[in-house]
Parts: sequence; structure tokens; C-alpha cells
Amino acid sequence: MRKCTVIADFLSADNKKQITECASETGFEVAFFEDTEAADGKVSGTEVFYSGGDASILEQMPAIKWCHTAFAGVGAYAASGVFDSGEVILTNSSGAYGRTIAEHIIMVTLMLMRRMPDYNGIIYRHEWTRDLPLRSVAGSNIVIIGTGDIGSNAAVRYHALGAKKVTGFNRSGRPAEGFDEVYRLADFDRLFGNSDFSESVDVLVLCIPGTAESQGIINAERISMLSRNTYVINVGRGWVIDQDALLDALNEGRIAGAALDVMYPEPLPEDHPLWTAPNCIVTPHMSGDMGLPYTVEKTVEFFCENLRHYAEGSKMIKQIDIKKGY
Amino acid sequence: MRKCTVIADFLSADNKKQITECASETGFEVAFFEDTEAADGKVSGTEVFYSGGDASILEQMPAIKWCHTAFAGVGAYAASGVFDSGEVILTNSSGAYGRTIAEHIIMVTLMLMRRMPDYNGIIYRHEWTRDLPLRSVAGSNIVIIGTGDIGSNAAVRYHALGAKKVTGFNRSGRPAEGFDEVYRLADFDRLFGNSDFSESVDVLVLCIPGTAESQGIINAERISMLSRNTYVINVGRGWVIDQDALLDALNEGRIAGAALDVMYPEPLPEDHPLWTAPNCIVTPHMSGDMGLPYTVEKTVEFFCENLRHYAEGSKMIKQIDIKKGY
Repeated sequence: MRKCTVIADFLSADNKKQITECASETGFEVAFFEDTEAADGKVSGTEVFYSGGDASILEQMPAIKWCHTAFAGVGAYAASGVFDSGEVILTNSSGAYGRTIAEHIIMVTLMLMRRMPDYNGIIYRHEWTRDLPLRSVAGSNIVIIGTGDIGSNAAVRYHALGAKKVTGFNRSGRPAEGFDEVYRLADFDRLFGNSDFSESVDVLVLCIPGTAESQGIINAERISMLSRNTYVINVGRGWVIDQDALLDALNEGRIAGAALDVMYPEPLPEDHPLWTAPNCIVTPHMSGDMGLPYTVEKTVEFFCENLRHYAEGSKMIKQIDIKKGY
Repeated sequence: MRKCTVIADFLSADNKKQITECASETGFEVAFFEDTEAADGKVSGTEVFYSGGDASILEQMPAIKWCHTAFAGVGAYAASGVFDSGEVILTNSSGAYGRTIAEHIIMVTLMLMRRMPDYNGIIYRHEWTRDLPLRSVAGSNIVIIGTGDIGSNAAVRYHALGAKKVTGFNRSGRPAEGFDEVYRLADFDRLFGNSDFSESVDVLVLCIPGTAESQGIINAERISMLSRNTYVINVGRGWVIDQDALLDALNEGRIAGAALDVMYPEPLPEDHPLWTAPNCIVTPHMSGDMGLPYTVEKTVEFFCENLRHYAEGSKMIKQIDIKKGY
């Protein structure tokens, strides 16, 4: 029988049953492993791989034809070289994370606007201080860089909570669900260079994939264009932002605050100054982790749909263009 | 000239200008004071009183005809005895707080569902733990006790974020905006006594005014009807809940968690066990404080509208029925 290998520590019994049934219908036998270590030396005949762990095990799969990652980012897979020739298919789980990451984005937006970095300190010290100046999502002006699944899910929710305007940025300026206007990334400097525009922005959300092109896109110069009214939220990849420049801006009060779920390096060293920067919420890259069952269910659903396509030889969904990196 | 006294420490220059202009148009002269202490001995001729402080100064206003409180709760005013005869009008600012308190409710709902009580500890210790089991507002089942301005604003936002169902409870069972169904409070025991119902509830939100009738309405017996799946959020008055019974339920894991913005006594003593109860977010009664400019603007708007009604002798808005207490 053709061999399908699944490595993941977050699958429920129901998730595994769904994969096993779908594999059986399509002529595959499945072996489940909790992690790469457990799979070591046991995966050589793998043709199809559902990967919820790291990419290193690909070396042990000379017969692989298709790898589906449970994650949205594909950096480590792309870097493996396995997919360079175009003969091995790589698909990802983009679309599984919009719900959980958008709820994280709304949560930290409200936490920043409602001064939770200060209130958390007050609460931690069991004090009773109130009436700190607050802001509201209702009537706010939001800018989101990245208009894919995550950006769109966030935009829809901001509007649902009464945001006045949600502006998107992407490569081409193509319209996207939930956005009032979408600009090309190339227009960033022109727009933020205009102080009427930059001062009107309550929140700048970054949810772009980590590609060579997006690295350092929010550099020191662009951070200096932001207003002291603006909160920065990053849920994409840490190195999309010049982190030292952002830290300076926080320390000097040149931006209103930040919520960073991604940073560099990860894990963030225990003594890193970001942990204690003013008006800053640091979270351990959990906005899009596997904690929400819906996310895991979606990754399994995408894999099973693709397994049927693969077995039939029909067009795969969520296939990665390895040169673009998404 | 007829005398209008304003006591509040949260009014902006624009707010004061609006009041002064409206008073001047309607034949009143306004005196502004930051607090009761500053006003002491200077308010005897007051006919109209905008109160953003405490009720004690009413004793010094023998000529008072109308008091407008900037708050929604009227307990201290009602208790003053000044309004008992029905000859002095009391109006409140119900309707000013829906936006800010609903945003608080959504924030703490997401914080509870996304495990921020645990993550805050992890972050505080600069650790890197993730993948804690999360839950989602999307698809959730919400119950809100109190279907007024605050409850309705919260219900609309829960639905906007994808909640499956929002059920309300009020005295009469009358329908209210944002709710799929509204039951009479008298039906609480019948509904929550059914484990299919109680186990389906993700969040129970309390936003009822603190009246004699609502005191202790969520008593130990009713807390014991709640499921370990249910988060409890209280933004009304602390003594709507039997706080000791709630603390026991939290400590024993009989409910999923709680977010309490109101409690007793307030301020909460520094060594009170609620501060450190598991899965519990305690905030210093700030969900509906004067930190959001929109809230203050609304209270001023209501006052000015009423000042015109009062001067014309037409029907006042937001007038309190002192016997009902709201």
C-alpha cells in the first residue's frame, strides 16, 4: 500500500480517524507519530506527508511526492531544497488561521486601547486606579498590511465593532473582503509620508507572510513616519519589522504602543528589553498556534480534500509557488 | 439668574463650553467645580445640578429642582432621600456607557477564551509556553442578564464576531436589540436547571443595575447550576453575585473562569483572595469609567438636551423612577 506519514502532537482522536478514513478510501496506509524524534528512521517509504512538526525529517523521505504543512508559513520547507525542482508538491494550511489570529488581533487592539499594559501592572500590584484615558474601536481608523485570510478576517471584525475605515496594503493593490480601500505596498511611503494620513491611523496591523521580500519592510525610516497616536500589531513574522527601531519608538513614546506575537529571536530571551517596553504586549507566538480546535480541524479538512485531489490527479488547493514563497 | 452647578473632574474645555452655551441659551448661569470639596459652601442657590461626583452635596442644595448624574447607577442619589417626594427630578446618563462597557466585555471575553490569565503569568515570568487550549467567540453561545443599553451593545458585538446565539434575560422577557431570544429572569432556574442548556453556555454576562431586587440574584445555588464550560463576566454591581460562592466555584474549577469589573467591597482590599483566584480577571471598576471621551460627551449631550426640556417644561429623557431605582 502507498504510504502516508503524519507527524503532529495536536491531533485529536477524531482528527486521526478522519485522516485514516480518507487515506483508506484513497488507497493510503497512515502512520502517525507525535514528533520528528518518534518518526526518526521509520518514514523512508513516505509518498505523502502531513507535517505538523519541523521540516528536517524530509531528508528521510526520498520517495516523497507531496508534503502538506499544518502551518501557514512555509519558510523552513521552502529552505529544505526538496521542493526546488518542482517535482514534489508543497501545500499549506493558509485559511485555517484567520479565525484564531483575527480574534487575537481584536483582543490585543482592545487591550491596547483600554490601557491593559498599565492596568495589568495596577492589577498585579492589587491597586485601585482607574479613569486612564481610553480609546475605542468604534469610530477608529485601521490599516492592515496583508489582505489575505488573516487580514480579511481582522478587517471584517474591526468593521463589525464599528471601525470607521479599514485600509489594506498588498502587493498589487487588488481589493479584498472587509477593506474599504486597498493600496499597493509601494504606496506606503507616499501615504504615511502625509501627516494627515499617518496621524489619522489608530492601529497598524502587520499580517504578511515572512518572505525575502517582506523582511524589514517596516524599517526605521517607516517607523519614524508613524504617529504617536498609532498602535502597531504584528502577527506575521518578527523580522518584518526593524525590532530595535520599534523598541526605540516605544521607549521614546513616538508610537502609542505595540502588541507583538512574533519577534526575533523566538523564544525571546528572558532578559530581552521588549518584555518590559512601555505600552507593549509581548505574547509567545500563540495567536495562531494549535490551541483552538477549529484551527486543527481546518488543517485536517484541507489535507483530506487535497488527498482526494492528489489520488485523482486533479488540481491541489493551497499549493505553494516555491519561488514566491507563498 | 437661575443657578446651575456642575461638579466633575472629567470635563474637557469643549465639554464645559457646550454646557455654558446651553445654560446661557436657557437662562442659567453655570458654576463649575472639580469635586465636592471644592464646591463645599458655594452651591446653596442651585436649581439644576450636573453631578459627576458624589451625592452628599445634595444636602447643601435646598432649592434643587433637578439633578442629572453623569453615571448610570443611581444608588447613592436614590438613597439621599432628596427625590423621595417626587418633587425633585433625577435623571441619569444611561446610554452613555454601552459603547465602552461593551468593548470591555468583548475584551475580557477574548482574554478568558484565549487564556490570558495563564498567558499573563507566562509573559510576566518572560517564559515561552504556548498551545494552551483556546476557545473562540465565533460559534459561541452567550447569555446576557440585562438587556438595556449595555447588554444590547454587547449582544450586537458578540453576533458581529460570529457568536452562534445570544440569549437575554430581563424582568418581563420583552425582546431587545441584538438578542435571539429573551427570557424572564424568573425563568433562570428552569433554564439553567436543564444541563443541556447550562452546559451549552460559553459566557454568562451580568449587566443589570444594582437595585434591591437584583441583590444576590446570582446566589450560591444558581452558581452551582453553571457548567465548568462557562465564563462569568460581571460589569453591573458586585453584589449581584454571591462573591464567596463564586470564589469557591473558581477555586474548585466548577466554572471556566470569571472577569469581574465590580465586586465588594470596592476598592478590593489588597489581600483579598479574588485578586489571585484561578482563571479570574479582576479590573478596578474601569469598564464604564470616564476614560473614554465618547462617554463624557454623551453625558453632556444628555444633560444639555434635558436642560432644554427642563427650561421649556417638556418631558425629560432618562428620568429615574425612584421606587424602581432605574
